[in-house]
Amino acid sequence: MQTELSVAQAERLILQTVPIWPAEPLALDAAAGRVLRQNVLAERDLPPYDRATMDGIAIVWRSWSSGQREFPLEGVQSAGQAPGALSGAGVAWRIATGAAIPEGADTVVPVERLVETNGGIRMDDAYRPKRGQFIHRQASDRRAGALLLKEGQRIGGVEMALLSANGVARPRVAPDPRIALVSTGDELVGLDSRPEGWQVRSSNGPAMSALLKRHGFGRVAAMHAPDDPEALAERIREALSESDAMVLSGGVSKGARDFVPGVLTEMGTRPALHRVRQRPGFPLWFGMHGEKPVFGLPGNPVSSLVCLRRYVIPALGKAQGARPATAAYATFTKAVTFKPALTWFLPVRLSTSNEGQLLAQPRQTNTSGDFASLAQTDGFAQLPANRSHFPAGATARIFRWNG
Amino acid sequence: MQTELSVAQAERLILQTVPIWPAEPLALDAAAGRVLRQNVLAERDLPPYDRATMDGIAIVWRSWSSGQREFPLEGVQSAGQAPGALSGAGVAWRIATGAAIPEGADTVVPVERLVETNGGIRMDDAYRPKRGQFIHRQASDRRAGALLLKEGQRIGGVEMALLSANGVARPRVAPDPRIALVSTGDELVGLDSRPEGWQVRSSNGPAMSALLKRHGFGRVAAMHAPDDPEALAERIREALSESDAMVLSGGVSKGARDFVPGVLTEMGTRPALHRVRQRPGFPLWFGMHGEKPVFGLPGNPVSSLVCLRRYVIPALGKAQGARPATAAYATFTKAVTFKPALTWFLPVRLSTSNEGQLLAQPRQTNTSGDFASLAQTDGFAQLPANRSHFPAGATARIFRWNG
Repeated sequence: MQTELSVAQAERLILQTVPIWPAEPLALDAAAGRVLRQNVLAERDLPPYDRATMDGIAIVWRSWSSGQREFPLEGVQSAGQAPGALSGAGVAWRIATGAAIPEGADTVVPVERLVETNGGIRMDDAYRPKRGQFIHRQASDRRAGALLLKEGQRIGGVEMALLSANGVARPRVAPDPRIALVSTGDELVGLDSRPEGWQVRSSNGPAMSALLKRHGFGRVAAMHAPDDPEALAERIREALSESDAMVLSGGVSKGARDFVPGVLTEMGTRPALHRVRQRPGFPLWFGMHGEKPVFGLPGNPVSSLVCLRRYVIPALGKAQGARPATAAYATFTKAVTFKPALTWFLPVRLSTSNEGQLLAQPRQTNTSGDFASLAQTDGFAQLPANRSHFPAGATARIFRWNG
Repeated sequence: MQTELSVAQAERLILQTVPIWPAEPLALDAAAGRVLRQNVLAERDLPPYDRATMDGIAIVWRSWSSGQREFPLEGVQSAGQAPGALSGAGVAWRIATGAAIPEGADTVVPVERLVETNGGIRMDDAYRPKRGQFIHRQASDRRAGALLLKEGQRIGGVEMALLSANGVARPRVAPDPRIALVSTGDELVGLDSRPEGWQVRSSNGPAMSALLKRHGFGRVAAMHAPDDPEALAERIREALSESDAMVLSGGVSKGARDFVPGVLTEMGTRPALHRVRQRPGFPLWFGMHGEKPVFGLPGNPVSSLVCLRRYVIPALGKAQGARPATAAYATFTKAVTFKPALTWFLPVRLSTSNEGQLLAQPRQTNTSGDFASLAQTDGFAQLPANRSHFPAGATARIFRWNG
């Protein structure tokens, strides 16, 4: 087991240790939010036919260029109809956006430039159509077989459009893992009772569950365990049997009643990591129970949310086969100082200047228990351990709570 | 009805026209993702008691400052236990993180600085504790009654932590509206059939549904309507009876078979807006059916996703009582040119430089039907109508698909 690693070392160790869950085929209408585990190729040319992009008439451009301005209407080409054919130059077909261009036609004149006449249609004299205009040519965007989506993307609106349009009725996707959240701490009471003066309300389960939901994890079960080794072991055994990954909060420090690492190890969970040179979140614990990742997060609310976002969510994404997010950087709006030789996770509010500078406004917390200060934040900055003063204008890597 | 408005005018008109849906109380464990419709005040002081932030011993600082290094252990203060009391200076209580400080003690010495002795505990000689250290003082973060969360925030991890910790068992939240998506177009076929050469697969329903889901809207029903006024009216009537808002795609242009505006108006939907000086999305239509917002989006996939993100999602957020997102700006990595006197929505890939500059890499599409090009994008830039050339380094407002 590794101890007191740097943030970079801890991150690498965790990402290298988690398994990659096997992909599964899923009906497309249930696949929003899942990680795509296959490439998607163009089923047909895109567009699949020469397609009108305006409502109007389809004509032969040479009939206009040779002076013709009034056209007999020979047919109507609607969207969804097999394309007809012009009998020759000099005639027009009415055509709708999305319809296939009738054979022989090479130009679309939009309805705004036309007036109806007796038995035909007349173009605006001043209008000068370009040959081929308002036709989205077959295969002009992509050829059949072209790579459209690479595996590892989470399926949002754009990905869903491409999957649907290319007939991928059952894409291969990563599973939505069952995640057990176990919060420990005898000082915690639930929503249904009134806390005594020395108790606090339990908040880590609901908070972590909500954050996981924002990141696309929908199968989260939150439960509580008392600070007692036997009862804790029982709870953990139960939680592990019904989940693919487990996240505990509390009980990972060095105190006499911090039973989590010991209980897990005794149950056969292989410890991989304990303690990371960071604040908040120093006591972080990570191990594997068989093929199931197990995270032991410190119990205070700021530490648990920061560690969830910084380590657990990227690790679950890795296990889903998601491509890692690219690092983002922001500029501090005011100076901050932090003396300890630890990486510092500092909550920030993010905005952009009119010049496109991503700005981080630090929201210093009193302690790692001061989660009221998180209310106005969008995420946190990661400040390196080897510096203690960060002037206004300094840049730092940032992590968004929700992105 | 307003026509050919600017983007800013259209946005203002839509946001001023949508209703604010009434708030409802909801069990907290179902409230993740909802918009909070009440302020949240601190239920008690935060923290509610003088709280140990390290495992170790609680002592009276003056006993150390007067030279004492070894302490008899008089008691154990665990988390969740009513605080005990020191019998006087010169003794120590073992204490756990999260526990209440026993009466009389004023300083916590962490376990790393201690060794057990026969019947007592001894501090590291070189260690110099500060008076009051490792005690998170009652009310030092917030006093009881302090404002913690303002109405209008969407409930994510941080908000859920504060709601739980302050005992808000049934917060008032905005409803999760039922949204009907109706896509029109006789050229569209579903996933279950093989498209003919002149047909395309339907993709707007699934794509818009996935994008709405990413923005927290979970009750979306997608359906298709043929390009026939009577069947369309029937479909719309059905969709309206089962939804709080409706989004149509296709059928809003000037073509002979663009029945959507006419059918809606005939059904009593009050038109408010038709056509916006923008590309893509020029034919955008908006009206109110009773108290239900109805959006008619152009049918091609790029237009419908852009209009959904630019107008529909902010309008639904407004109706939920969500605070508007602050505008974000990014810098172009290369020059782009767009001649028409229209606002241009240009798909972009976003990243940040190491210096914290938010960068937009334009992904020019061939046409508004070229949605394969959207695959690698994070959102789109909004480029003003009164300029045609935007050099590398120019800044523009951006909209993230998912944020």
